[in-house]
Amino acid sequence: MEECKPILNTGLRGFKVASTKISDVDGNAGKLVYRGYLIKELAGKISFEEAAYLILYEKLPSQDELDRFNALLVAERQVPPELIASLESRPKDALPMDILQAGTAMLANHDPDAKELSLEAVNRMAIKLIAKFPIIVAAWERIRNNKKPVEPDPDLGHSANFLYMLSGTVPDDELAGFFDVCMVLHAEHSFNASTFAAREVASTRAHIYSAVAAGVGSLSGELHGGANTRVMEMLMDIGSVEKVEEYVNHLLETGGIIMGLGHAVYSTDDPRAHILAPMSKVMGERLGDTRWYEMSKRLELTAKEAFRRKKGRDIYVNVDFYSASLYYYMGIPTDLFTPIFAISRIAGWTAHVIEEQFGGAAPKPVLYRPDSQYIGDYCGPDLCEFVPMEER
Amino acid sequence: MEECKPILNTGLRGFKVASTKISDVDGNAGKLVYRGYLIKELAGKISFEEAAYLILYEKLPSQDELDRFNALLVAERQVPPELIASLESRPKDALPMDILQAGTAMLANHDPDAKELSLEAVNRMAIKLIAKFPIIVAAWERIRNNKKPVEPDPDLGHSANFLYMLSGTVPDDELAGFFDVCMVLHAEHSFNASTFAAREVASTRAHIYSAVAAGVGSLSGELHGGANTRVMEMLMDIGSVEKVEEYVNHLLETGGIIMGLGHAVYSTDDPRAHILAPMSKVMGERLGDTRWYEMSKRLELTAKEAFRRKKGRDIYVNVDFYSASLYYYMGIPTDLFTPIFAISRIAGWTAHVIEEQFGGAAPKPVLYRPDSQYIGDYCGPDLCEFVPMEER
Repeated sequence: MEECKPILNTGLRGFKVASTKISDVDGNAGKLVYRGYLIKELAGKISFEEAAYLILYEKLPSQDELDRFNALLVAERQVPPELIASLESRPKDALPMDILQAGTAMLANHDPDAKELSLEAVNRMAIKLIAKFPIIVAAWERIRNNKKPVEPDPDLGHSANFLYMLSGTVPDDELAGFFDVCMVLHAEHSFNASTFAAREVASTRAHIYSAVAAGVGSLSGELHGGANTRVMEMLMDIGSVEKVEEYVNHLLETGGIIMGLGHAVYSTDDPRAHILAPMSKVMGERLGDTRWYEMSKRLELTAKEAFRRKKGRDIYVNVDFYSASLYYYMGIPTDLFTPIFAISRIAGWTAHVIEEQFGGAAPKPVLYRPDSQYIGDYCGPDLCEFVPMEER
Repeated sequence: MEECKPILNTGLRGFKVASTKISDVDGNAGKLVYRGYLIKELAGKISFEEAAYLILYEKLPSQDELDRFNALLVAERQVPPELIASLESRPKDALPMDILQAGTAMLANHDPDAKELSLEAVNRMAIKLIAKFPIIVAAWERIRNNKKPVEPDPDLGHSANFLYMLSGTVPDDELAGFFDVCMVLHAEHSFNASTFAAREVASTRAHIYSAVAAGVGSLSGELHGGANTRVMEMLMDIGSVEKVEEYVNHLLETGGIIMGLGHAVYSTDDPRAHILAPMSKVMGERLGDTRWYEMSKRLELTAKEAFRRKKGRDIYVNVDFYSASLYYYMGIPTDLFTPIFAISRIAGWTAHVIEEQFGGAAPKPVLYRPDSQYIGDYCGPDLCEFVPMEER
């Protein structure tokens, strides 16, 4: 029997809506677990492909299993030419997350698997989505800059190939490796808003493209995946390490929000932020420009101190805080930070859709259909009487 | 203080997740209320445009208000030519709901309002969505049949213009009027699965196109909006009135589901079904082919009787049950039944997104981010220890 509190207008915070075997977020202890493994035990030791395998198939792959999985992913590193042609007709300033949402739905148009509600079909579609998400994002970056999309390189790993298709340059091992760690860190996070949206759509027995398109839409919001872009905009807005303290104090006095601080679930350190921060430092040093890392560090310390002093409570940075400066150092355009979150989180979304529709973690898949409290008072406590047009 | 029960794996059934002023569904009494008005008081008396106005702006419009609203809708009866060109490149057997989901996201690409999170912008986008949804559905129906999309007729009402663009023939008043009643009946239904998905996405501060695309995805599922298509397929599968009893008995014995029966919220008659059934009868008589209506009626009575006898409980038809034969009589292709649901429900979705983001019904918009129960037992009760690749 679960603990029970009134639920109205709480955004379901703290309510266990379903059972899952995929991941565990212990917000008090600051722990994140993928299929039994602590994220800090995995980050830096496994590739994104291994993480995706673990998240989808419930175990770390052997070399043979990984090779077979990788071959399937590499074979799906393309999108229908009609999708590319359609991207070429979009306004160049279209929001990349909207491009990705439309692209996800368009993939369904071209895939007969979308018409089959079976475990085999959904597993095939999961692999296609993981493989094709980076293709769509990279193609759009090229097209909006009036460049031709770069052909994928089957000899490159998933992350390295994405960076190559984005820029046309094969990344060195350190860059590709750091980016791959980011991909592992963002791959899964239990019932966050976008995953819940994807599960909600999947619960109607809609196909996985429909469900994932909902996840993309949810992730685009600035309170969710959009936050990493907003963190970078904030850093640019502040401009220098010296101005951090004034910025923090001003925001606290005016009731503004400091992006990248606080989390719906963690009441202590976000375990992912610990891994991202040193990578941001190294990448800054490598470029001889540690300003964005140092501003982030100063902002973290200043905000922590100010929150303790003014609000009497602790505040912690979340996954978006250091990923912003890190992605920036990697040369990634600010408005692609959130799509990059998506090309990682697609591993979690697909696993959750499969669990929702076929997983058996819950006693039986149940359509999410909550109730609401009606507070319409248009005619006082009574219902309204109909008034014909001529008397209105 | 709300009533409180354990919530795990119940699909949130019966849980009041938020307050709303938009509509009320009293599942025990079989009552549906739009902004203070009982649906049975509205159906047949107001047009879809009036219903949409009521749902969006909280009052029935005066003639002047309606004229202004209608002028805005008529002015938006087109989609970007790039969207039409993109539709022309899709496989002709693509699922219409996938076309609509992709189309919704593509509309965002072409609308600068999507970049502005303001009440003014979201209100403009709501009108665009209501006006453009029928255009996308009708255009796809033409394109997949190798016909040119029909230009809209500004002198026709919202429903009549849709039927005209679908078939190329201006519908007579009875047909257009019946269809318009269907549009009013399907326009809003509180926190059903698709509306909840749209609100969930909107709660991250994503824009309304993203949120509505999630609603479209959710509605496509056969447990939700997809059910009306499945009802018609079932009727065709049965084939004749004489075979209904055998069909019902067979399904009950084998544990199969009879489409269009039962509802997540109503434990009595769905008030919309009462209004739809006689329209189906009239349309059948008009065509001299009452078979589909009579099969539906026989199926309803047989199932009711069988449920009482074998399961000791009552069962009721829902909104999808009679809308199936009715739409069929109207000459609408079976796989457009669900998109037609969407071009009506877009009124409710847009109102809910606006309420979620700006409405003030809830104390403060809160990101939907539930918790889950982790039941991963991959290494017994403990966490797993990392195993390097060469030891797996």
